Amino acid sequence: MSLGIVFLSEVLGTGMLTLLGCGVVANVALRGTKGNAGGFLMVTWGWGIAVFSGVFIAAKSGAHLNPAVTLGLLLNGKEEYAPGVRVDAASTLTYFGGELVGAFLGAVVCWLAYKQHFDHEEDPANKLATFSTGPAIRSTGWNVVTEVIGTFVLVIVILSFGGTPSGLGPLAVALLVVGIGVSLGGPTGYAINPARDLGPRIAHAVLPIRGKGSSNWAYSWVPIVGPLVGGGLAGLVARVTPDIFAAVAS
Amino acid sequence: MSLGIVFLSEVLGTGMLTLLGCGVVANVALRGTKGNAGGFLMVTWGWGIAVFSGVFIAAKSGAHLNPAVTLGLLLNGKEEYAPGVRVDAASTLTYFGGELVGAFLGAVVCWLAYKQHFDHEEDPANKLATFSTGPAIRSTGWNVVTEVIGTFVLVIVILSFGGTPSGLGPLAVALLVVGIGVSLGGPTGYAINPARDLGPRIAHAVLPIRGKGSSNWAYSWVPIVGPLVGGGLAGLVARVTPDIFAAVAS
Amino acid sequence: MSLGIVFLSEVLGTGMLTLLGCGVVANVALRGTKGNAGGFLMVTWGWGIAVFSGVFIAAKSGAHLNPAVTLGLLLNGKEEYAPGVRVDAASTLTYFGGELVGAFLGAVVCWLAYKQHFDHEEDPANKLATFSTGPAIRSTGWNVVTEVIGTFVLVIVILSFGGTPSGLGPLAVALLVVGIGVSLGGPTGYAINPARDLGPRIAHAVLPIRGKGSSNWAYSWVPIVGPLVGGGLAGLVARVTPDIFAAVAS
Amino acid sequence: MSLGIVFLSEVLGTGMLTLLGCGVVANVALRGTKGNAGGFLMVTWGWGIAVFSGVFIAAKSGAHLNPAVTLGLLLNGKEEYAPGVRVDAASTLTYFGGELVGAFLGAVVCWLAYKQHFDHEEDPANKLATFSTGPAIRSTGWNVVTEVIGTFVLVIVILSFGGTPSGLGPLAVALLVVGIGVSLGGPTGYAINPARDLGPRIAHAVLPIRGKGSSNWAYSWVPIVGPLVGGGLAGLVARVTPDIFAAVAS
Repeated sequence: MSLGIVFLSEVLGTGMLTLLGCGVVANVALRGTKGNAGGFLMVTWGWGIAVFSGVFIAAKSGAHLNPAVTLGLLLNGKEEYAPGVRVDAASTLTYFGGELVGAFLGAVVCWLAYKQHFDHEEDPANKLATFSTGPAIRSTGWNVVTEVIGTFVLVIVILSFGGTPSGLGPLAVALLVVGIGVSLGGPTGYAINPARDLGPRIAHAVLPIRGKGSSNWAYSWVPIVGPLVGGGLAGLVARVTPDIFAAVAS
Repeated sequence: MSLGIVFLSEVLGTGMLTLLGCGVVANVALRGTKGNAGGFLMVTWGWGIAVFSGVFIAAKSGAHLNPAVTLGLLLNGKEEYAPGVRVDAASTLTYFGGELVGAFLGAVVCWLAYKQHFDHEEDPANKLATFSTGPAIRSTGWNVVTEVIGTFVLVIVILSFGGTPSGLGPLAVALLVVGIGVSLGGPTGYAINPARDLGPRIAHAVLPIRGKGSSNWAYSWVPIVGPLVGGGLAGLVARVTPDIFAAVAS
Repeated sequence: MSLGIVFLSEVLGTGMLTLLGCGVVANVALRGTKGNAGGFLMVTWGWGIAVFSGVFIAAKSGAHLNPAVTLGLLLNGKEEYAPGVRVDAASTLTYFGGELVGAFLGAVVCWLAYKQHFDHEEDPANKLATFSTGPAIRSTGWNVVTEVIGTFVLVIVILSFGGTPSGLGPLAVALLVVGIGVSLGGPTGYAINPARDLGPRIAHAVLPIRGKGSSNWAYSWVPIVGPLVGGGLAGLVARVTPDIFAAVAS
Repeated sequence: MSLGIVFLSEVLGTGMLTLLGCGVVANVALRGTKGNAGGFLMVTWGWGIAVFSGVFIAAKSGAHLNPAVTLGLLLNGKEEYAPGVRVDAASTLTYFGGELVGAFLGAVVCWLAYKQHFDHEEDPANKLATFSTGPAIRSTGWNVVTEVIGTFVLVIVILSFGGTPSGLGPLAVALLVVGIGVSLGGPTGYAINPARDLGPRIAHAVLPIRGKGSSNWAYSWVPIVGPLVGGGLAGLVARVTPDIFAAVAS
């Protein structure tokens, strides 16, 4: 498969991910929506089904949708990122690029879908929250720790899927993302994906959003570094324990 | 398969869709019900399982249940709407007709199921909301945009299902509808289906509902045009990107 | 298979159904529980998974768990209630008996699980609500209509499952029950099963529940007659429309 | 398979279970989290997906994750705990050990993920609740009864899974755990697993948690004895009713 197809596939899939994912936060956080104050459980289902939908869309490229997943597969020693896509520097950068561009575009479309509510919302913090994550309690070190743990869980469980055949398809990862959200999303809002956070943050910075505030670039490296460390670590752990993750190494 | 069977199948399936879909709104919105003020997440699960149930009922005709889906398949270039049902003008109109009649009938039965609560409810707006959608913030252009985006997501993801085999069956589209609801339902209440909105609106207009108000015909074209544009667009996008949606074109 | 096995299977399965089903109402309604005031959506998930669990337990007998389902299969013209169980008067009465006895026993065990909370709860209405259904607005005719509609949906969709193969197994009927709950449970609390209502009502009448009030026998026939009419009607409708429910008739 | 692999597999799987399970309680209970006061339904989904994730991780060892499950399989008369793992004293103790060590470690990692929120929370009861269960109303006898019933349901339904093939894989047990939570979790918080309660309680006792209170050792035997009795009883019941649980005995 050509890297152009991989790029387009990841753009469309990750775009679907942030369109629906940012969308549910907009629905809960912005003024006057029908789902206003719908609760954290609704937010987590929204992100879970966002992943679910994105995985179907990006089936051709293996639906990474997340640089932390791509890095985890790389460090795990995989030979292919998807059927017919060899692991090398060019393909790795193609995944990273497609994921970031898609995440940016999805957030732009989300803004269009909720345009009137962005205009009516008065609190700039709620507008930024629709795009990117932020910590409940700011503490650089501990925020990184939380993102490392959450993304480690994401990637290690994905790497274990092969060991238990089921007919769940993309539902398995969707439920996993719901679970990480409700269980580990409390301190930082579970970015667990550098593209999901950076792409929409760039969109927030460049879009002409009425009454927007800071894009909080000071925090922006945390949801990049934490997930990459967590995802990479998961790939390595699965690699050194083939007796547990045998289906992975084979 | 005869078009009579297609018609009956879509009537029954779409009737199930609006019976259960309008039902969950009645439960949340009407006075004195056991699920009163049950929240937006409950509403979205109700509509998701309404689709789930309707898809089983209308299996024979491929369970479109939605003119935007029918139009999407038409513009996608499909040769058959369901096994044994050729795509042509007659079959297309049969689907449209069955979907509209079914959506009307389901709303009538929903009214019977909640008859006492329609009688006790005092706000005409809650009665109309049980039948048809309305915008959180009225803005014709942006309301159309939101419905286009939501229905595009619905149809493009449905068109991608073939690329990832799973044992989910009708659960996949049910979860997708839950996701569109929580993520993109905030501004307009996610009609994403012209029949689902128009059929019940006609029912609202003709039924002897105690203390009902306007059927809001001024808004009624938005949840028709928006979904048709979004669904048709999704069919075209999938058609011109066979490398991504290969299973679709085959 | 012997009718003794059928009886035991239905007792165990329907017992699981009311143990978990009445349990979630106890958790939401009784004083001092950890799930107090947990909301209607939680109640519907509880009943859905109660059915899910009961279906696994009663696999041997086809897991009717509900006289309205048994009657629906009978009027549908089935030759077997389960592999190896012929449809006749003796087997029909065995199902009815097992379902009622199981529903009674499950409610008794539920009372034991929540014994302390039954003792601390002061409102007799909350105690009865844990066992049996009651209408939001008392209106004999309309309450029957609502139960007929809800049970018709239950049985007609179950009869359509065969037309769409999936790997969902008992999850399909569980989600259907969640859907009927959120969408049609508002007026009467969705008995949709004579045994589920009568068995626990008998338990309420005979158990030494501290401070209990009336078992409301005046209403008790509604959740018996309504579901039997609705389920039977669904069996007949599926029988006379073999072109739609072909897999049923075969 | 070597017992070392079994041990490691159960450590990792049960660690995942308590990391995500204790995590959702932390998110709901601790001060300042994004999921604060998220409700009981969210807690039950969190534990359900915690089991879901742990089952994938521990596929190699059959994913017991729970001494009550191990005991249930032992008393049921199984010859193997997992493919290639014979039932004997050494393997039984290996499962028990792995489950307890894993449950301890998962709780430690959960504490790290929520470190800032443990520090900001003022009520020691909320800190302990994140780790271990406690009764809504203290009553030793009835608390044991509730735990026996809940764990009996867990193990008997698991033992019935074999009789109804589906493509649900680990989702079946996840939904079962959600159901036990919403339906039977009201009085004691549904430990239904001695390791899940004791491991985190030890972690609570030894970790330097700021402002922590008692680890409530007086209650600690209830969530050990109740689940072991319930799980063991389920194994015996399934053994003596092979006509109902035939797939189990074969």
